Amino acid sequence: MRKLYIGNKNYSSWSMRPWVLMKQAGIAFDEVMVRFDSFEAESQFKHTIAALNPVAKVPVLVDGDLVVWDTLAIAEYLAETFPEKQLWPKAVADRARARSICAEMHSGFGGLRGHCGMNIEASLPEVGARLLEEQPEVRSDLDRIVQMWSDLLGTHGGPLLFGDFTIADAYFAPIGTRIKTYGLPVPPAISAYIERVQALPGIKAWIDEALAEKDFLQFEEPYRTAR
Amino acid sequence: MRKLYIGNKNYSSWSMRPWVLMKQAGIAFDEVMVRFDSFEAESQFKHTIAALNPVAKVPVLVDGDLVVWDTLAIAEYLAETFPEKQLWPKAVADRARARSICAEMHSGFGGLRGHCGMNIEASLPEVGARLLEEQPEVRSDLDRIVQMWSDLLGTHGGPLLFGDFTIADAYFAPIGTRIKTYGLPVPPAISAYIERVQALPGIKAWIDEALAEKDFLQFEEPYRTAR
Repeated sequence: MRKLYIGNKNYSSWSMRPWVLMKQAGIAFDEVMVRFDSFEAESQFKHTIAALNPVAKVPVLVDGDLVVWDTLAIAEYLAETFPEKQLWPKAVADRARARSICAEMHSGFGGLRGHCGMNIEASLPEVGARLLEEQPEVRSDLDRIVQMWSDLLGTHGGPLLFGDFTIADAYFAPIGTRIKTYGLPVPPAISAYIERVQALPGIKAWIDEALAEKDFLQFEEPYRTAR
Repeated sequence: MRKLYIGNKNYSSWSMRPWVLMKQAGIAFDEVMVRFDSFEAESQFKHTIAALNPVAKVPVLVDGDLVVWDTLAIAEYLAETFPEKQLWPKAVADRARARSICAEMHSGFGGLRGHCGMNIEASLPEVGARLLEEQPEVRSDLDRIVQMWSDLLGTHGGPLLFGDFTIADAYFAPIGTRIKTYGLPVPPAISAYIERVQALPGIKAWIDEALAEKDFLQFEEPYRTAR
Protein backbone atom coordinates (compact mmCIF):
# COMPACT_ATOMS: atom_id res chain seq x y z
CA MET A 1 0.00 0.00 0.00
CA ARG A 2 1.29 3.48 -0.78
CA LYS A 3 2.24 5.53 2.24
CA LEU A 4 1.97 9.26 2.71
CA TYR A 5 4.27 10.81 5.30
CA ILE A 6 2.80 13.95 6.78
CA GLY A 7 3.32 16.38 9.66
CA ASN A 8 0.83 17.67 12.25
CA LYS A 9 -2.60 18.07 10.71
CA ASN A 10 -3.29 21.36 12.45
CA TYR A 11 -0.15 23.03 11.10
CA SER A 12 1.21 21.25 8.02
CA SER A 13 -0.40 22.90 5.03
CA TRP A 14 1.83 21.09 2.52
CA SER A 15 0.91 17.72 4.04
CA MET A 16 -2.76 18.62 3.78
CA ARG A 17 -2.72 18.97 0.00
CA PRO A 18 -1.90 15.41 -1.19
CA TRP A 19 -3.75 13.89 1.78
CA VAL A 20 -7.05 15.60 0.96
CA LEU A 21 -6.46 14.99 -2.74
CA MET A 22 -6.19 11.23 -2.26
CA LYS A 23 -8.96 11.07 0.34
CA GLN A 24 -11.39 13.04 -1.78
CA ALA A 25 -10.48 11.17 -4.99
CA GLY A 26 -10.79 7.79 -3.29
CA ILE A 27 -7.16 6.76 -3.71
CA ALA A 28 -6.21 4.35 -0.93
CA PHE A 29 -3.15 5.08 1.18
CA ASP A 30 -1.72 4.59 4.63
CA GLU A 31 -0.90 7.71 6.56
CA VAL A 32 2.33 8.00 8.50
CA MET A 33 2.16 11.02 10.77
CA VAL A 34 5.54 12.28 11.91
CA ARG A 35 5.04 14.82 14.64
CA PHE A 36 6.75 18.17 14.24
CA ASP A 37 8.90 17.96 17.39
CA SER A 38 11.14 20.62 15.82
CA PHE A 39 12.83 21.36 12.50
CA GLU A 40 16.36 21.22 13.91
CA ALA A 41 18.76 18.74 12.32
CA GLU A 42 18.75 16.54 15.41
CA SER A 43 14.94 16.42 15.71
CA GLN A 44 13.06 13.17 15.45
CA PHE A 45 11.09 14.69 12.59
CA LYS A 46 14.14 15.56 10.48
CA HIS A 47 15.78 12.27 11.36
CA THR A 48 12.77 10.26 10.18
CA ILE A 49 12.09 12.22 7.00
CA ALA A 50 15.74 12.62 5.97
CA ALA A 51 15.90 8.84 5.75
CA LEU A 52 13.27 9.06 3.00
CA ASN A 53 14.24 12.08 0.96
CA PRO A 54 17.20 14.42 0.77
CA VAL A 55 15.23 17.59 1.46
CA ALA A 56 13.88 16.18 4.74
CA LYS A 57 10.46 17.76 4.32
CA VAL A 58 6.92 16.44 4.24
CA PRO A 59 4.88 15.39 2.39
CA VAL A 60 6.57 12.32 0.98
CA LEU A 61 4.73 9.61 -0.93
CA VAL A 62 6.26 6.15 -0.85
CA ASP A 63 4.80 3.75 -3.41
CA GLY A 64 6.72 0.50 -3.41
CA ASP A 65 10.29 1.37 -4.35
CA LEU A 66 9.27 4.80 -5.48
CA VAL A 67 9.76 7.85 -3.28
CA VAL A 68 8.10 11.03 -4.51
CA TRP A 69 8.49 14.29 -2.66
CA ASP A 70 7.32 17.80 -3.08
CA THR A 71 3.61 18.29 -3.36
CA LEU A 72 3.42 19.16 -7.03
CA ALA A 73 5.41 16.09 -8.05
CA ILE A 74 3.14 13.91 -5.90
CA ALA A 75 0.07 15.45 -7.55
CA GLU A 76 1.44 14.83 -11.06
CA TYR A 77 2.43 11.29 -10.13
CA LEU A 78 -1.06 10.55 -8.84
CA ALA A 79 -2.69 12.20 -11.87
CA GLU A 80 -0.82 9.97 -14.27
CA THR A 81 -1.17 6.84 -12.13
CA PHE A 82 -4.94 7.27 -11.83
CA PRO A 83 -6.06 8.80 -15.13
CA GLU A 84 -9.63 7.64 -14.48
CA LYS A 85 -9.82 9.91 -11.43
CA GLN A 86 -9.32 13.03 -13.58
CA LEU A 87 -7.34 14.80 -10.93
CA TRP A 88 -6.54 17.58 -13.39
CA PRO A 89 -9.33 19.24 -15.39
CA LYS A 90 -10.24 17.41 -18.60
CA ALA A 91 -9.91 20.27 -21.13
CA VAL A 92 -6.36 21.11 -22.14
CA ALA A 93 -6.82 24.85 -21.53
CA ASP A 94 -8.30 24.24 -18.07
CA ARG A 95 -5.51 21.82 -17.26
CA ALA A 96 -2.89 24.38 -18.24
CA ARG A 97 -4.63 27.02 -16.13
CA ALA A 98 -4.89 24.65 -13.16
CA ARG A 99 -1.20 23.86 -13.40
CA SER A 100 -0.36 27.56 -13.66
CA ILE A 101 -2.18 28.44 -10.45
CA CYS A 102 -0.82 25.41 -8.59
CA ALA A 103 2.73 26.33 -9.64
CA GLU A 104 1.96 29.89 -8.53
CA MET A 105 0.90 28.54 -5.13
CA HIS A 106 3.96 26.30 -5.02
CA SER A 107 6.41 29.17 -5.21
CA GLY A 108 4.36 32.20 -4.27
CA PHE A 109 2.00 33.74 -1.72
CA GLY A 110 4.91 34.44 0.61
CA GLY A 111 2.91 37.02 2.55
CA LEU A 112 0.07 34.70 3.49
CA ARG A 113 2.40 31.77 4.09
CA GLY A 114 4.90 33.71 6.16
CA HIS A 115 2.51 35.73 8.30
CA CYS A 116 -0.59 33.52 8.43
CA GLY A 117 0.74 30.08 9.23
CA MET A 118 -1.90 27.37 8.93
CA ASN A 119 -3.56 26.81 12.27
CA ILE A 120 -6.90 25.15 11.68
CA GLU A 121 -7.95 25.04 15.32
CA ALA A 122 -7.24 28.69 16.12
CA SER A 123 -9.48 31.71 15.67
CA LEU A 124 -7.36 34.83 15.30
CA PRO A 125 -9.43 37.50 13.55
CA GLU A 126 -7.78 40.34 15.50
CA VAL A 127 -4.38 39.10 14.28
CA GLY A 128 -5.69 38.96 10.72
CA ALA A 129 -7.03 42.51 10.93
CA ARG A 130 -3.68 43.77 12.19
CA LEU A 131 -1.71 41.85 9.54
CA LEU A 132 -3.89 43.28 6.78
CA GLU A 133 -3.08 46.76 8.02
CA GLU A 134 0.62 46.24 8.65
CA GLN A 135 1.69 43.81 5.95
CA PRO A 136 0.99 44.91 2.37
CA GLU A 137 2.04 41.44 1.14
CA VAL A 138 -0.78 39.79 3.08
CA ARG A 139 -3.23 42.21 1.49
CA SER A 140 -1.90 41.69 -2.04
CA ASP A 141 -1.85 37.90 -1.65
CA LEU A 142 -5.44 37.95 -0.45
CA ASP A 143 -6.46 40.22 -3.34
CA ARG A 144 -4.84 37.81 -5.80
CA ILE A 145 -6.66 34.82 -4.25
CA VAL A 146 -10.01 36.59 -4.46
CA GLN A 147 -9.37 37.57 -8.07
CA MET A 148 -8.20 34.06 -9.03
CA TRP A 149 -11.08 32.22 -7.41
CA SER A 150 -13.68 34.73 -8.60
CA ASP A 151 -12.46 34.39 -12.19
CA LEU A 152 -12.49 30.61 -12.10
CA LEU A 153 -15.83 30.29 -10.32
CA GLY A 154 -17.25 32.77 -12.83
CA THR A 155 -15.83 30.92 -15.82
CA HIS A 156 -16.84 27.44 -14.75
CA GLY A 157 -19.93 28.29 -12.75
CA GLY A 158 -18.68 26.34 -9.72
CA PRO A 159 -19.24 24.55 -7.50
CA LEU A 160 -15.43 24.18 -7.40
CA LEU A 161 -12.64 26.07 -9.19
CA PHE A 162 -12.87 24.00 -12.38
CA GLY A 163 -16.39 22.67 -11.86
CA ASP A 164 -15.70 19.25 -10.36
CA PHE A 165 -13.05 18.60 -7.72
CA THR A 166 -9.48 18.76 -9.03
CA ILE A 167 -5.94 19.11 -7.72
CA ALA A 168 -6.44 22.88 -7.74
CA ASP A 169 -9.07 22.71 -4.98
CA ALA A 170 -6.78 20.51 -2.89
CA TYR A 171 -3.89 22.88 -3.54
CA PHE A 172 -5.76 25.91 -2.27
CA ALA A 173 -7.63 24.19 0.58
CA PRO A 174 -5.05 25.36 3.18
CA ILE A 175 -5.57 28.95 1.99
CA GLY A 176 -9.26 28.57 2.77
CA THR A 177 -8.43 27.45 6.31
CA ARG A 178 -6.13 30.47 6.73
CA ILE A 179 -8.81 32.87 5.55
CA LYS A 180 -11.11 31.45 8.24
CA THR A 181 -8.50 31.29 11.03
CA TYR A 182 -7.40 34.89 10.51
CA GLY A 183 -10.87 36.17 9.65
CA LEU A 184 -9.63 37.70 6.42
CA PRO A 185 -12.47 39.54 4.67
CA VAL A 186 -13.57 38.04 1.36
CA PRO A 187 -16.70 38.44 -0.77
CA PRO A 188 -19.66 36.12 0.00
CA ALA A 189 -19.05 34.04 -3.15
CA ILE A 190 -15.53 33.29 -1.94
CA SER A 191 -16.67 32.38 1.57
CA ALA A 192 -19.26 30.10 0.03
CA TYR A 193 -16.59 28.38 -2.07
CA ILE A 194 -14.43 27.85 1.03
CA GLU A 195 -17.40 26.31 2.83
CA ARG A 196 -18.15 24.01 -0.11
CA VAL A 197 -14.53 22.82 -0.16
CA GLN A 198 -14.49 22.24 3.58
CA ALA A 199 -17.70 20.24 3.34
CA LEU A 200 -16.18 17.76 0.89
CA PRO A 201 -15.66 14.49 2.81
CA GLY A 202 -11.93 14.31 2.04
CA ILE A 203 -11.29 17.85 3.26
CA LYS A 204 -13.66 17.59 6.20
CA ALA A 205 -11.83 14.48 7.39
CA TRP A 206 -8.52 16.36 7.56
CA ILE A 207 -10.05 19.32 9.39
CA ASP A 208 -11.82 17.06 11.90
CA GLU A 209 -8.58 15.24 12.61
CA ALA A 210 -6.68 18.51 12.94
CA LEU A 211 -9.21 19.70 15.53
CA ALA A 212 -8.89 16.42 17.40
CA GLU A 213 -5.08 16.55 17.41
CA LYS A 214 -4.65 18.46 20.71
CA ASP A 215 -0.98 19.14 20.12
CA PHE A 216 0.22 22.66 20.82
CA LEU A 217 3.54 23.48 19.14
CA GLN A 218 4.98 26.72 20.42
CA PHE A 219 7.28 27.24 17.42
CA GLU A 220 4.30 27.02 15.04
CA GLU A 221 2.31 29.52 17.08
CA PRO A 222 3.58 33.11 16.89
CA TYR A 223 0.21 34.49 17.99
CA ARG A 224 -0.78 32.26 20.91
CA THR A 225 0.80 30.89 24.04
CA ALA A 226 -1.63 28.01 24.52
CA ARG A 227 -4.30 26.14 22.64
CA MET B 1 2.97 30.29 -33.59
CA ARG B 2 3.38 29.95 -29.84
CA LYS B 3 5.12 32.85 -28.16
CA LEU B 4 7.36 32.78 -25.14
CA TYR B 5 7.67 36.01 -23.18
CA ILE B 6 10.99 36.29 -21.41
CA GLY B 7 13.18 38.82 -19.59
CA ASN B 8 16.83 39.70 -20.10
CA LYS B 9 18.81 36.64 -21.08
CA ASN B 10 21.76 37.50 -18.87
CA TYR B 11 19.66 37.74 -15.73
CA SER B 12 16.34 35.92 -16.08
CA SER B 13 16.93 32.39 -14.86
CA TRP B 14 13.23 31.49 -14.96
CA SER B 15 12.95 32.65 -18.56
CA MET B 16 15.95 30.53 -19.46
CA ARG B 17 14.32 27.25 -18.46
CA PRO B 18 11.40 26.95 -20.94
CA TRP B 19 13.40 28.74 -23.66
CA VAL B 20 16.28 26.24 -23.59
CA LEU B 21 13.80 23.39 -23.16
CA MET B 22 11.97 24.29 -26.38
CA LYS B 23 15.14 25.16 -28.29
CA GLN B 24 16.90 21.96 -27.35
CA ALA B 25 13.81 19.81 -27.95
CA GLY B 26 13.16 21.41 -31.33
CA ILE B 27 9.79 22.94 -30.44
CA ALA B 28 9.22 26.03 -32.58
CA PHE B 29 8.33 29.32 -30.89
CA ASP B 30 8.67 33.04 -31.25
CA GLU B 31 10.51 34.82 -28.51
CA VAL B 32 9.20 38.08 -27.09
CA MET B 33 11.88 39.68 -24.97
CA VAL B 34 10.55 42.23 -22.49
CA ARG B 35 13.47 44.11 -21.02
CA PHE B 36 13.69 44.31 -17.23
CA ASP B 37 13.48 48.10 -16.97
CA SER B 38 12.42 47.62 -13.36
CA PHE B 39 9.98 45.54 -11.32
CA GLU B 40 7.99 48.50 -10.02
CA ALA B 41 4.27 48.54 -10.78
CA GLU B 42 4.65 51.41 -13.24
CA SER B 43 7.53 49.79 -15.18
CA GLN B 44 7.17 48.93 -18.83
CA PHE B 45 8.02 45.33 -17.92
CA LYS B 46 5.22 44.94 -15.35
CA HIS B 47 2.81 46.82 -17.59
CA THR B 48 3.48 44.48 -20.53
CA ILE B 49 3.43 41.22 -18.59
CA ALA B 50 0.47 42.11 -16.36
CA ALA B 51 -1.61 42.33 -19.53
CA LEU B 52 -0.87 38.63 -20.07
CA ASN B 53 -1.04 37.09 -16.63
CA PRO B 54 -2.13 38.18 -13.17
CA VAL B 55 1.20 37.51 -11.48
CA ALA B 56 3.03 39.80 -13.94
CA LYS B 57 6.11 37.60 -14.09
CA VAL B 58 8.00 35.90 -16.88
CA PRO B 59 8.11 33.39 -18.41
CA VAL B 60 4.70 33.28 -20.03
CA LEU B 61 3.81 30.97 -22.89
CA VAL B 62 1.02 32.09 -25.19
CA ASP B 63 -0.30 29.38 -27.48
CA GLY B 64 -3.32 30.60 -29.41
CA ASP B 65 -5.95 31.49 -26.79
CA LEU B 66 -4.03 29.72 -24.10
CA VAL B 67 -1.85 31.59 -21.64
CA VAL B 68 0.36 29.42 -19.45
CA TRP B 69 2.54 30.93 -16.77
CA ASP B 70 4.93 29.66 -14.20
CA THR B 71 7.78 27.54 -15.48
CA LEU B 72 6.63 24.19 -14.15
CA ALA B 73 3.17 24.57 -15.69
CA ILE B 74 4.76 25.50 -19.03
CA ALA B 75 7.00 22.42 -18.84
CA GLU B 76 4.04 20.13 -18.10
CA TYR B 77 1.99 21.72 -20.87
CA LEU B 78 4.78 21.17 -23.39
CA ALA B 79 5.38 17.62 -22.19
CA GLU B 80 1.78 16.66 -22.79
CA THR B 81 1.49 18.62 -26.05
CA PHE B 82 4.60 16.96 -27.51
CA PRO B 83 4.65 13.42 -26.12
CA GLU B 84 6.98 12.32 -28.92
CA LYS B 85 9.68 14.65 -27.59
CA GLN B 86 9.85 12.77 -24.28
CA LEU B 87 10.50 15.89 -22.28
CA TRP B 88 10.14 13.91 -19.06
CA PRO B 89 12.08 10.65 -18.58
CA LYS B 90 10.34 7.59 -20.02
CA ALA B 91 10.32 5.31 -16.94
CA VAL B 92 7.66 6.11 -14.35
CA ALA B 93 10.13 6.08 -11.45
CA ASP B 94 12.52 8.39 -13.29
CA ARG B 95 9.68 10.68 -14.24
CA ALA B 96 8.55 10.91 -10.61
CA ARG B 97 12.12 11.65 -9.53
CA ALA B 98 12.54 14.28 -12.22
CA ARG B 99 9.33 15.97 -11.13
CA SER B 100 10.43 15.82 -7.49
CA ILE B 101 13.70 17.63 -8.16
CA CYS B 102 12.08 20.19 -10.47
CA ALA B 103 9.44 20.94 -7.82
CA GLU B 104 12.29 21.21 -5.30
CA MET B 105 14.00 23.75 -7.57
CA HIS B 106 10.70 25.54 -8.10
CA SER B 107 10.23 26.34 -4.42
CA GLY B 108 13.68 25.90 -2.94
CA PHE B 109 17.36 26.78 -3.16
CA GLY B 110 16.67 30.16 -1.62
CA GLY B 111 20.32 30.63 -0.67
CA LEU B 112 21.67 30.24 -4.18
CA ARG B 113 18.81 32.17 -5.73
CA GLY B 114 18.92 35.03 -3.25
CA HIS B 115 22.66 35.50 -3.01
CA CYS B 116 23.91 34.29 -6.38
CA GLY B 117 21.62 35.95 -8.89
CA MET B 118 22.06 34.61 -12.41
CA ASN B 119 24.56 36.74 -14.27
CA ILE B 120 25.92 34.72 -17.16
CA GLU B 121 28.33 37.35 -18.41
CA ALA B 122 29.99 38.08 -15.06
CA SER B 123 32.93 36.32 -13.41
CA LEU B 124 32.73 36.76 -9.65
CA PRO B 125 34.74 34.01 -7.99
CA GLU B 126 35.85 36.24 -5.09
CA VAL B 127 32.16 36.98 -4.36
CA GLY B 128 31.40 33.26 -4.49
CA ALA B 129 34.23 32.46 -2.05
CA ARG B 130 32.96 35.10 0.36
CA LEU B 131 29.33 33.95 0.10
CA LEU B 132 30.34 30.37 0.81
CA GLU B 133 32.05 31.54 4.00
CA GLU B 134 29.38 33.93 5.16
CA GLN B 135 26.13 32.34 4.03
CA PRO B 136 25.49 28.81 5.31
CA GLU B 137 22.45 28.57 3.01
CA VAL B 138 24.61 29.00 -0.08
CA ARG B 139 26.87 26.20 1.14
CA SER B 140 23.97 23.86 1.94
CA ASP B 141 22.24 24.56 -1.39
CA LEU B 142 25.48 23.82 -3.24
CA ASP B 143 25.97 20.61 -1.24
CA ARG B 144 22.46 19.51 -2.12
CA ILE B 145 23.03 20.20 -5.83
CA VAL B 146 26.27 18.21 -5.85
CA GLN B 147 24.58 15.32 -4.06
CA MET B 148 21.54 15.39 -6.37
CA TRP B 149 23.50 15.54 -9.61
CA SER B 150 26.10 12.99 -8.44
CA ASP B 151 23.35 10.52 -7.51
CA LEU B 152 21.54 10.92 -10.82
CA LEU B 153 24.66 10.84 -12.99
CA GLY B 154 25.76 7.75 -11.06
CA THR B 155 22.40 6.02 -11.45
CA HIS B 156 21.91 6.77 -15.13
CA GLY B 157 25.58 6.88 -16.21
CA GLY B 158 25.11 10.30 -17.86
CA PRO B 159 25.64 12.11 -20.05
CA LEU B 160 22.71 14.10 -18.60
CA LEU B 161 20.76 13.77 -15.36
CA PHE B 162 18.41 11.09 -16.66
CA GLY B 163 20.57 9.91 -19.56
CA ASP B 164 19.09 11.85 -22.47
CA PHE B 165 18.06 15.50 -22.25
CA THR B 166 14.92 16.12 -20.20
CA ILE B 167 13.12 18.97 -18.48
CA ALA B 168 15.34 18.37 -15.45
CA ASP B 169 18.49 19.47 -17.33
CA ALA B 170 16.70 22.59 -18.53
CA TYR B 171 15.45 23.26 -15.01
CA PHE B 172 18.91 23.16 -13.49
CA ALA B 173 20.77 24.86 -16.35
CA PRO B 174 20.67 28.27 -14.59
CA ILE B 175 22.27 26.66 -11.52
CA GLY B 176 25.16 25.56 -13.73
CA THR B 177 25.66 29.12 -14.94
CA ARG B 178 25.65 30.36 -11.32
CA ILE B 179 28.26 27.80 -10.29
CA LYS B 180 30.50 29.12 -13.08
CA THR B 181 29.81 32.83 -12.49
CA TYR B 182 30.55 32.61 -8.76
CA GLY B 183 33.34 30.04 -9.13
CA LEU B 184 31.65 27.72 -6.65
CA PRO B 185 33.80 24.64 -6.07
CA VAL B 186 32.31 21.37 -7.30
CA PRO B 187 33.81 17.94 -8.05
CA PRO B 188 35.17 17.34 -11.57
CA ALA B 189 32.23 15.11 -12.54
CA ILE B 190 29.86 17.96 -11.74
CA SER B 191 31.90 20.52 -13.69
CA ALA B 192 31.95 18.11 -16.61
CA TYR B 193 28.15 17.77 -16.47
CA ILE B 194 27.77 21.57 -16.46
CA GLU B 195 30.02 21.79 -19.52
CA ARG B 196 28.05 19.09 -21.32
CA VAL B 197 24.79 20.93 -20.65
CA GLN B 198 26.23 24.25 -21.79
CA ALA B 199 27.51 22.63 -25.00
CA LEU B 200 23.99 21.48 -25.99
CA PRO B 201 22.90 23.68 -28.91
CA GLY B 202 19.73 24.88 -27.19
CA ILE B 203 21.57 25.93 -24.03
CA LYS B 204 24.58 27.35 -25.89
CA ALA B 205 22.25 29.53 -27.95
CA TRP B 206 20.83 31.15 -24.80
CA ILE B 207 24.29 31.71 -23.27
CA ASP B 208 25.64 33.21 -26.50
CA GLU B 209 22.70 35.59 -26.70
CA ALA B 210 23.09 36.51 -23.02
CA LEU B 211 26.73 37.40 -23.65
CA ALA B 212 25.75 39.48 -26.68
CA GLU B 213 23.05 41.34 -24.77
CA LYS B 214 25.21 44.23 -23.50
CA ASP B 215 22.58 45.48 -21.08
CA PHE B 216 23.78 46.37 -17.60
CA LEU B 217 20.97 46.48 -15.04
CA GLN B 218 22.10 47.99 -11.78
CA PHE B 219 19.27 46.50 -9.71
CA GLU B 220 20.22 42.99 -10.88
CA GLU B 221 23.89 43.55 -10.02
CA PRO B 222 24.63 43.71 -6.29
CA TYR B 223 28.28 42.86 -6.87
CA ARG B 224 29.32 45.11 -9.78
CA THR B 225 28.93 48.73 -10.79
CA ALA B 226 29.50 48.19 -14.52
CA ARG B 227 29.66 45.38 -17.03
